[in-house]
Amino acid sequence: MNFPKRIQINEVVLRDGLQLEKKIVSVKEKKMLFDQLVKARLETIEFGSFVHPRLVPQMANSGELYSLISDEYKLLTMIALIPNLKGAVNAYSHGVKQVNFVFSASDTHNLQNVHKRTEESLKELETIQAFCTQKNIELNVSIATTFGCPFEGEVPTERIKSVLTKVISMHVKTITLADTTGMANPQQVYDLLVSLRSDFPEQKFNLHFHNTRGMGLSNILAGMQAGVDSYDTSLGGLGGCPFAPGATGNVCTEDVVHMLHSMGIETGLSLDELITASETLTKIVEHETPSYIRKAGPYNRKYPIPTTIK
Amino acid sequence: MNFPKRIQINEVVLRDGLQLEKKIVSVKEKKMLFDQLVKARLETIEFGSFVHPRLVPQMANSGELYSLISDEYKLLTMIALIPNLKGAVNAYSHGVKQVNFVFSASDTHNLQNVHKRTEESLKELETIQAFCTQKNIELNVSIATTFGCPFEGEVPTERIKSVLTKVISMHVKTITLADTTGMANPQQVYDLLVSLRSDFPEQKFNLHFHNTRGMGLSNILAGMQAGVDSYDTSLGGLGGCPFAPGATGNVCTEDVVHMLHSMGIETGLSLDELITASETLTKIVEHETPSYIRKAGPYNRKYPIPTTIK
Repeated sequence: MNFPKRIQINEVVLRDGLQLEKKIVSVKEKKMLFDQLVKARLETIEFGSFVHPRLVPQMANSGELYSLISDEYKLLTMIALIPNLKGAVNAYSHGVKQVNFVFSASDTHNLQNVHKRTEESLKELETIQAFCTQKNIELNVSIATTFGCPFEGEVPTERIKSVLTKVISMHVKTITLADTTGMANPQQVYDLLVSLRSDFPEQKFNLHFHNTRGMGLSNILAGMQAGVDSYDTSLGGLGGCPFAPGATGNVCTEDVVHMLHSMGIETGLSLDELITASETLTKIVEHETPSYIRKAGPYNRKYPIPTTIK
Repeated sequence: MNFPKRIQINEVVLRDGLQLEKKIVSVKEKKMLFDQLVKARLETIEFGSFVHPRLVPQMANSGELYSLISDEYKLLTMIALIPNLKGAVNAYSHGVKQVNFVFSASDTHNLQNVHKRTEESLKELETIQAFCTQKNIELNVSIATTFGCPFEGEVPTERIKSVLTKVISMHVKTITLADTTGMANPQQVYDLLVSLRSDFPEQKFNLHFHNTRGMGLSNILAGMQAGVDSYDTSLGGLGGCPFAPGATGNVCTEDVVHMLHSMGIETGLSLDELITASETLTKIVEHETPSYIRKAGPYNRKYPIPTTIK
């Protein structure tokens, strides 16, 4: 098994992670969480999204949050998700320096999510790209339902490659391939990424897995074996797309980091601080999270030997 | 990534799976579950254990269960766990044809579990082996804490190899290497199994993982890459050793089978029937289980497209 020696973790709890939460998390709480993420040495954080506040109320305070963090953490990569040009304009008006434009590889999910066919979103990407270039905003792209669509099922590899060819021609920074509803399996991840990295050797890929069917960590293992060294993860394993039926949490940051560290793979992060941040998160959202490591502790936790052996 | 084309699944829900359950599951309920496991085409089932009923009350009806299933399912491999010679004698008195002797690679856990040092259990194994040969009982061995001890931490590879050399000299059928409290990581599993399969090329190994730290499926992926084609799993992901602090559920049968099938790897099992059995299990134990697939359904589940697109 060959793995990259170091993995980059992009924290998405403040965006994808909170999307399905019933309790609206305040700017103050989000700022507190952000501070703890920085303490755990996270350097790339998706902090929110500029979408219609009626559709995703949890994200309505993203601009306000950015104004609280942008001065303090100038050196961090703070990314806002945008679903369209309006989102890009809105992000720009708040001074955001880096955006992540999301659309789906499958028409049906893209229609659900942003009311457009994939082809229409690709057209809009051209306009967004022109806008970002003009305003000096760094542009990333996320392609949802890359590993399967909850409505259509399998998304053909040829379709993914055709979409990618168009996106790559626009010279975006990072392309995230997202498994929106946890349909990917390790063999599929490995085969697709080996093929894509061979077809597009210059492009930086980032992978985004949901743990809906328990395969999140296994898919990261497969992605690493295909040579991918960058992953989205969400503190506490929270998350899910509000417009994808059956969506559940992202792969959990502290569980991923724990696995990588136990395998001798570096992330640059502090697992202890991540666990502390995850505890704060549980208090904020007021319910248990799918995190394993927050509950079990790391593998090298030693228990005291009971004094009475029955 | 190279995987075996077919994986053997050994179901342990009736033994390891129920050990930590508070509600005592009746023989009638166990029989109902056993019938459903057979319907899912499971052929190797650990049905119970012959341990002191005061220590593990849940297992007290194992003999009674065996008398209900042994006539009906003559062709199946029905295994009883035994912690000592007394267990072997007890199993024999109920007509059991195959046993699994368990002891720990680490002294401290073995003292907790069976009040003996590893060396003493190995001595007892000699007596058990003689007894089983005389009585025509097939003998398997499980080595707990192979991948780490909750009290001692890492268990040195040299110690594992020394224990294995002694066990293998006694010509037992299958040797199960168990990660009793979910401490194993994929790199460790791969490295250890590549090394053991090279040192002991004739020995059949079976792996037993707990999902305490979310790495169960990843560890199976790593085990498969090392060439191991046999795994213990527990329906619904139930389980845990009563004498290991922090122990939680085994890797979940339906989640493992789902991952393998989605990767094109055969198990011979019916995923649909496993999900049905897992639903029955939830009713029997009267609480939610850690199963992902019972809740999310398989990856190829298609959702209806909403009629109104907002």
